[in-house]
Amino acid sequence: MIRIAVCAPSAPILPEDADRVHALAAAEFPNVELHIHPQSFAVDGHFAGSDAQRLDALVECANDPTFDAVWFARGGYGACRIAEDAVRRFDRNARNKTWLGYSDAGYLLGALYRERIGHPVHAPMLACMRREGGDEAARRALRFLNGDRSGIEPSVGDRPTVAFNLMTLAMLCGTPLMPGLAGHVVMVEEVSEHLYAIDRLFFHLTAHLGGVAGLRLGRVSDVPQNDREFGATAEQIARHWCERHAIAYLGSADIGHDAANKIVPFGLAAAPQPQ
Amino acid sequence: MIRIAVCAPSAPILPEDADRVHALAAAEFPNVELHIHPQSFAVDGHFAGSDAQRLDALVECANDPTFDAVWFARGGYGACRIAEDAVRRFDRNARNKTWLGYSDAGYLLGALYRERIGHPVHAPMLACMRREGGDEAARRALRFLNGDRSGIEPSVGDRPTVAFNLMTLAMLCGTPLMPGLAGHVVMVEEVSEHLYAIDRLFFHLTAHLGGVAGLRLGRVSDVPQNDREFGATAEQIARHWCERHAIAYLGSADIGHDAANKIVPFGLAAAPQPQ
Repeated sequence: MIRIAVCAPSAPILPEDADRVHALAAAEFPNVELHIHPQSFAVDGHFAGSDAQRLDALVECANDPTFDAVWFARGGYGACRIAEDAVRRFDRNARNKTWLGYSDAGYLLGALYRERIGHPVHAPMLACMRREGGDEAARRALRFLNGDRSGIEPSVGDRPTVAFNLMTLAMLCGTPLMPGLAGHVVMVEEVSEHLYAIDRLFFHLTAHLGGVAGLRLGRVSDVPQNDREFGATAEQIARHWCERHAIAYLGSADIGHDAANKIVPFGLAAAPQPQ
Repeated sequence: MIRIAVCAPSAPILPEDADRVHALAAAEFPNVELHIHPQSFAVDGHFAGSDAQRLDALVECANDPTFDAVWFARGGYGACRIAEDAVRRFDRNARNKTWLGYSDAGYLLGALYRERIGHPVHAPMLACMRREGGDEAARRALRFLNGDRSGIEPSVGDRPTVAFNLMTLAMLCGTPLMPGLAGHVVMVEEVSEHLYAIDRLFFHLTAHLGGVAGLRLGRVSDVPQNDREFGATAEQIARHWCERHAIAYLGSADIGHDAANKIVPFGLAAAPQPQ
């Protein structure tokens, strides 16, 4: 039996999100037990409850020895407000867990990876089921927890790898949550940002990526229409800033804010993953 | 006679912008000679010409010994792409100049301040004349160059001060353009960003502001409507992150993306300014 705790360090989910994933798990993953923390439905302004509520729920899930994994319910925004305190309160029970999420959950994945706490994994979240084809995204995460490695991003190889939302990683740079990424393949994806903002984020990020093995660009989707054309594609932007900082541009990555978003275990994918 | 060079390191201006400022200067500032570099009207995608064009024009203005000041024509986005190369090419003639601009020009003001090249000044730009009451904004910049200090932000006192767009300063952090700000009063303003993005930028920025004398918040304007209320005002956000990092929150600053935007000479305002 794989026992998975779900909580929402950023934005809340709805009861129907929970019903849907429970139905999927019941039908297809008989060895999975999903425990959705009630905090996942809390609402406080932009967030799934106050900072204290989100922090307490996360720490509760992390430190419960009966859970094998913590699956972040949804992104949005808010994990950076509690990540530092959370990591400080995690005890040894947190160290055996697999942590799944992406987008805004990247603040936590980054902090966990920095502190070498368990196995942070870039993976679809529960709320991704809302997308077209989203059931398959949720299946991908649950299959991974079952030891099925077919959902891993295909370029992942023998070099340590991380995957982040571009904005999230740019905001992590230089903060107490930022992991050391020397020797790593760094994958980034973005959604709903203008190309000038993508360029600006690459200006910032690449100044902080000295020593990485290289960069891969995931999907850059839902770019808003601007009052004028930017004049370069997202890939050209990535290449420009990589070249500027002598970072190897390694090509595309099969990650993004969509149902096809693949799995990227942080570090060496070949490292043992808990069952 | 005060000779001012205008160029556009970010986005272009239009000929009517130039006509308008020439008319104003002719009518009210007989001792001002404005030289608008033709690059200011160039268009290449998002930018006022290619990186090379914007860089060359800026270096030309900076290194021309007959100019007393360089007035950045307009913000937008793009100065970060050329600032590092520009500063490297500036010669001793750049060292006597006053540099005026804000918003995206903050990348240059920051780099100039870091390298102690002349007098960087947060001030209205030429394109600010497009705003309602914008003539007064342009007058404020031109009066300052005439030695009139009445347009200086009223809280500016005996501590070294800088002023930036929040996004711009957040993106500068940790890059080769970032000036040391220990002991400084740091003023930030923002426009057209969601409150969750403001919060995210403060998360990032305040992690980099160790040792500053304190923070002042300028106007946060044109905040887009979100699908839900954020739950805190911009001031509450600023106070939250300042408290988190033991940064003194000093109150408001009379700066912003509007015609009332006041002048903030970088460093000590009492330092000699060239006439």
